[in-house]
Amino acid sequence: MKSTFGTNFKLTLFGESHGPAVGFVLDGLPAGIRLDLDRIRRELTKRRPAGRISTQRQEADEFTFLSGFYDGHTTGTPLTLVIENKAQHSQDYEAMKYLPRPSHADFTAFAKYGGYQDARGGGHFSGRVTAGLVAAGAVFEQILSEHGIAVGTHVLQCMDARDRGFDCARLKEDIAALDSPDFPVLDEGAGRAMRALIEQAQAEGDSLGAILETAIDGLPAGIGEPFFHSVESELSALLFSIPALKGVQFGLGFGFASLPGSQANDAPVGLADGRLRTRTNHNGGLGGGITNGMPVVFSTVIKPTPSIYKEQDTLDLRTGAPQKLRIHGRHDPAIFHRARSVVDAVTAIGLCDLMMGRYGYLWARKEEPCATD
Amino acid sequence: MKSTFGTNFKLTLFGESHGPAVGFVLDGLPAGIRLDLDRIRRELTKRRPAGRISTQRQEADEFTFLSGFYDGHTTGTPLTLVIENKAQHSQDYEAMKYLPRPSHADFTAFAKYGGYQDARGGGHFSGRVTAGLVAAGAVFEQILSEHGIAVGTHVLQCMDARDRGFDCARLKEDIAALDSPDFPVLDEGAGRAMRALIEQAQAEGDSLGAILETAIDGLPAGIGEPFFHSVESELSALLFSIPALKGVQFGLGFGFASLPGSQANDAPVGLADGRLRTRTNHNGGLGGGITNGMPVVFSTVIKPTPSIYKEQDTLDLRTGAPQKLRIHGRHDPAIFHRARSVVDAVTAIGLCDLMMGRYGYLWARKEEPCATD
Amino acid sequence: MKSTFGTNFKLTLFGESHGPAVGFVLDGLPAGIRLDLDRIRRELTKRRPAGRISTQRQEADEFTFLSGFYDGHTTGTPLTLVIENKAQHSQDYEAMKYLPRPSHADFTAFAKYGGYQDARGGGHFSGRVTAGLVAAGAVFEQILSEHGIAVGTHVLQCMDARDRGFDCARLKEDIAALDSPDFPVLDEGAGRAMRALIEQAQAEGDSLGAILETAIDGLPAGIGEPFFHSVESELSALLFSIPALKGVQFGLGFGFASLPGSQANDAPVGLADGRLRTRTNHNGGLGGGITNGMPVVFSTVIKPTPSIYKEQDTLDLRTGAPQKLRIHGRHDPAIFHRARSVVDAVTAIGLCDLMMGRYGYLWARKEEPCATD
Amino acid sequence: MKSTFGTNFKLTLFGESHGPAVGFVLDGLPAGIRLDLDRIRRELTKRRPAGRISTQRQEADEFTFLSGFYDGHTTGTPLTLVIENKAQHSQDYEAMKYLPRPSHADFTAFAKYGGYQDARGGGHFSGRVTAGLVAAGAVFEQILSEHGIAVGTHVLQCMDARDRGFDCARLKEDIAALDSPDFPVLDEGAGRAMRALIEQAQAEGDSLGAILETAIDGLPAGIGEPFFHSVESELSALLFSIPALKGVQFGLGFGFASLPGSQANDAPVGLADGRLRTRTNHNGGLGGGITNGMPVVFSTVIKPTPSIYKEQDTLDLRTGAPQKLRIHGRHDPAIFHRARSVVDAVTAIGLCDLMMGRYGYLWARKEEPCATD
Repeated sequence: MKSTFGTNFKLTLFGESHGPAVGFVLDGLPAGIRLDLDRIRRELTKRRPAGRISTQRQEADEFTFLSGFYDGHTTGTPLTLVIENKAQHSQDYEAMKYLPRPSHADFTAFAKYGGYQDARGGGHFSGRVTAGLVAAGAVFEQILSEHGIAVGTHVLQCMDARDRGFDCARLKEDIAALDSPDFPVLDEGAGRAMRALIEQAQAEGDSLGAILETAIDGLPAGIGEPFFHSVESELSALLFSIPALKGVQFGLGFGFASLPGSQANDAPVGLADGRLRTRTNHNGGLGGGITNGMPVVFSTVIKPTPSIYKEQDTLDLRTGAPQKLRIHGRHDPAIFHRARSVVDAVTAIGLCDLMMGRYGYLWARKEEPCATD
Repeated sequence: MKSTFGTNFKLTLFGESHGPAVGFVLDGLPAGIRLDLDRIRRELTKRRPAGRISTQRQEADEFTFLSGFYDGHTTGTPLTLVIENKAQHSQDYEAMKYLPRPSHADFTAFAKYGGYQDARGGGHFSGRVTAGLVAAGAVFEQILSEHGIAVGTHVLQCMDARDRGFDCARLKEDIAALDSPDFPVLDEGAGRAMRALIEQAQAEGDSLGAILETAIDGLPAGIGEPFFHSVESELSALLFSIPALKGVQFGLGFGFASLPGSQANDAPVGLADGRLRTRTNHNGGLGGGITNGMPVVFSTVIKPTPSIYKEQDTLDLRTGAPQKLRIHGRHDPAIFHRARSVVDAVTAIGLCDLMMGRYGYLWARKEEPCATD
Repeated sequence: MKSTFGTNFKLTLFGESHGPAVGFVLDGLPAGIRLDLDRIRRELTKRRPAGRISTQRQEADEFTFLSGFYDGHTTGTPLTLVIENKAQHSQDYEAMKYLPRPSHADFTAFAKYGGYQDARGGGHFSGRVTAGLVAAGAVFEQILSEHGIAVGTHVLQCMDARDRGFDCARLKEDIAALDSPDFPVLDEGAGRAMRALIEQAQAEGDSLGAILETAIDGLPAGIGEPFFHSVESELSALLFSIPALKGVQFGLGFGFASLPGSQANDAPVGLADGRLRTRTNHNGGLGGGITNGMPVVFSTVIKPTPSIYKEQDTLDLRTGAPQKLRIHGRHDPAIFHRARSVVDAVTAIGLCDLMMGRYGYLWARKEEPCATD
Repeated sequence: MKSTFGTNFKLTLFGESHGPAVGFVLDGLPAGIRLDLDRIRRELTKRRPAGRISTQRQEADEFTFLSGFYDGHTTGTPLTLVIENKAQHSQDYEAMKYLPRPSHADFTAFAKYGGYQDARGGGHFSGRVTAGLVAAGAVFEQILSEHGIAVGTHVLQCMDARDRGFDCARLKEDIAALDSPDFPVLDEGAGRAMRALIEQAQAEGDSLGAILETAIDGLPAGIGEPFFHSVESELSALLFSIPALKGVQFGLGFGFASLPGSQANDAPVGLADGRLRTRTNHNGGLGGGITNGMPVVFSTVIKPTPSIYKEQDTLDLRTGAPQKLRIHGRHDPAIFHRARSVVDAVTAIGLCDLMMGRYGYLWARKEEPCATD
């Protein structure tokens, strides 16, 4: 279905930017998973706009469970989480209903829903809806961390500013360093350069995009399925559901077009705990769509925020006549540093789907104490 | 499920490289679609190894329908297509069961299936299985072409050889030119350069990868769903199911990290037949995951064939001891020029799923004459 | 998934009896369906306990849409409806956590969730959760009625009291007569007799079950799928999701074991609007799992409410020791007259899934005016 | 999808009565399940027409695996089983294309597929297709029997002849006695009476139906899901996919309308191995849709074969004019004694889906030895 994901669970994301709430319903988790609500809050904080380089729409993102959560743990029945919308300024958008913002979903939503969409603030296409995605991801990240699996994402490149890549020799530390609401880079200097670029773009009424790099530590070998549910298939379907994300590559990715097989192949050099160790990791921990035990590494690209303050050309959908457009309202000059929390979230969602497909859904509850024991 | 795809139909791909057959079962097509068997044969020919730059395993790829096809058209019940395997040389592989080829699925299949997989010739992970995918794609390409939608893929870049990109002003012609079993490039000179590179790699016992570019002509606006079933999500999940494919980007893709929003945004300049025309097409015809009516353009990367003749390092899975590996058998020095038929096939599969999600499954039968009319 | 239904949409039912709310999320409806909120309220009223023969737990069942509904119509994105729980008396149940009520879900929920379930008031197994199901059904009943399709259910038999069956010659009137919150019978005298039986059972601290009969008017021929998604399969899966429902039969049902084929077969005697008219309707409007155009008729049985006030035998789950059990709290001596609203609801849900499978999801929006027209 | 079933696996049934083959594709089984081909043959034999009281179409039902089976066990990839059709007499049917047999799927298939169906011999609606279902069921019955779970079905009632019910005190023996191709009754005398009735119906060119009773031994408590995937929902959806099956009831079923709660409730009297023991088993081993550990017992009804030799009324679909119809070809005077093998098969399919939903798909492989151990 449209906004529903999952083979081994069903996750439905709901909500509109200016409706009463955003959130999710998640059907398929086992009973008895203890949920750390602070962990969910922390992930939501990473996503939330903050400081000078973000939109001024500030929401506390307080959430409540409507169902499936009792006495600190999941009950085994559908888990419903709701985040109320509080800071809507709908009047900002109403005037532009027939003036689509360039490269935004305004026109395509119009074409798809024939004018019946809730267009206020981008409706279901708003980045606001990703708050539900991040909250869902935080549930799955807890499950993964019980099994020693961690996910981290940093900004690898923005314009000519470039962070260092993950250091596989100390991957755990690199990932841990990214678990903060700070600007997500591994090298502070690169972060300062990127923030300066964003501030400059903001001053010019412009916006910027970036390449993000993600690493997953701790996956066993043998996860993923051939063909349609390969690790790459599962993760990319989720990653491309992030608004503004336009590319996904695993390991060397597009670099594979410039390297002969003899250099591109990763030679096996060790085997421990069922995991292969390879001399290089050009394949990003994957063979035939299945994990080999090396870290899974991929990168993605987030395009520049389409909502910019500079005057732009558009047309009036009623008449087809050209129009000049100046966007008001509250907009980020860059969202990629916030988007990394969504990348982490969907990665966790996809990995748990694959792990539950491999080991059964009961895997999601690390400990299985039973009241009758 | 593992090897099953589709929201509006269920397509299951089956078969092993050295088993009795490969093929597919497709549940969900309406009755009354006339199928042109020559079209299926033509697509299979594009995928088939041919000439000096391919493996010597040559199969006629004759297919039969076991069900769902009667009197020249679909019957509305599951459509089963079978391609017999005839040219297996299983003895080539048996010796290497515990010596995984670097960057191949040998180890990961072993890790996943615990030794129970049919490892002969790569089993279910063999490129051979994509013959079933191409045959399925050929069914869907017929459906699309009844609605004026066409898909074409060429090799954009291999090492330093580069084809010209699609010319959107004459996209129909560019796509039509690629509908032949020849080496798929738009510029003959680029093709000659690439073939020379492949022959050189072959001579050295090495292999090459490449970037492919795909264009889709004729899609209406409003196709695709928000979030998990965006056009990008649906296509990327399918594309990453192609063995050796390691990256997918839409429009500018990773180039979006180097362009400010004011230059990256595609300004609307016209509206016709419900389709938006934009000055540029940096977003590859998509906004919010939904088509806007411009051509959908994406590129993918196929890594160098991992099976090379050069001696490589590996280890023995039973002992963990290092081993030198020399691969015999029949292998391609490059598969990207054949892989383009698989890219076209999965693109057609994904587009039909989305179109049927938008217009209903009856859309798949253009004409709906009824015997009782 | 567990509490998720649908091929052509995904409906997830959520909530626990004593949690914050019950409701549903529905992904897959087209944009632009006008929803009559009074119709939803009316269906909820049919389900709500009322009068002397029902539990004293009285809830107003006020609902709100959290998403997917804007300006009086659906938006095409997930539709979330929430009904707050207000009248919980949790203390009634806490004492009985380890004393399972006979024939209730107490033990099986315990066995399944290992003590992690929200056991208060039956949790997710409470009849309370069917309020969400009835609200979802009311949405689908509106869609059906736009296409001239109507569903009605009455109590056919309770102990020795028996209502008359549907009169196919005036089916529309029969169904219309049942669209009220009154005790659902076609013959008033039968209703009085049944109510007297229920009051007597109530006086004795006992409970009663009944057979319900349902008719569907207005379905075209050709709806349903062979095998796993036959009309019978789809409806029975939904019907058996109603707590306390223990049998489903179509047409003559179990009576087919006592009639030879020559008498059981329904002879075709006419054809109009693509619908077959048959002399008898022993098959309940179905052949090969697909509608033939005659009214679809089926019956179901609702077992006596397991929660009775009479003392019963049970055992303590901690020790296995026998215990006497007296249930307090608020319980119905019969729920079958309320259950008919749930039967109507799930029937509407199933029929819309099948109709959307036949005609595409856009069928669900009768009129398709577009803002750009 | 239409002919595809399963939450934890995907089973697609394919084939037409007079096409090249019938069979199934099954995606989702783990690798390493040893399959006993004789067991599959034995189940197919139970389904096969035999002796005087069956059709003269006799097929050896030899099957082959096209994929997913290697060296005696499953490989973890899609399992494809094919049974060739050999004994088609298509000319028997061609004349009747526009003369629908009363109560058969002829008309409804026509209405649904608009004349494009393969109508020969009933096409996809033929009982022949259930050979694939029985073969699939035999795979799942093996999995169940590795876990000590057994399914058996007998003819409970045909006209006034009635077999004794299952004896829960010796259920294993009763079920074991039914594992033979003989006429499936627990009491030989009842079987003789039923066979005499069938022979008499045959002599008169007529046909008979019957009630079947099924018992499942060995299920743990806690299997099944609330609402849409209750044991009743899952099994009934499968059972109603059997051609000619018109009713399903669990435990007392329709008898619940005539018994007060105080007599209908099953009092818990013991607890062992996590299974509840109840004084009676009126609920057929289920509470809230979930197993309690008592045997699951249900009954179904198979209507009389609609194809009878007596002259019947029908009409010509082209003109609507009344016609007399005499059916030639090969037809059973009763199919219920053969249908029991299909009931067993779909029960096994549904139970495994639920067990895999409870314990994970790896449950399906009892032993999990690994080549690397």
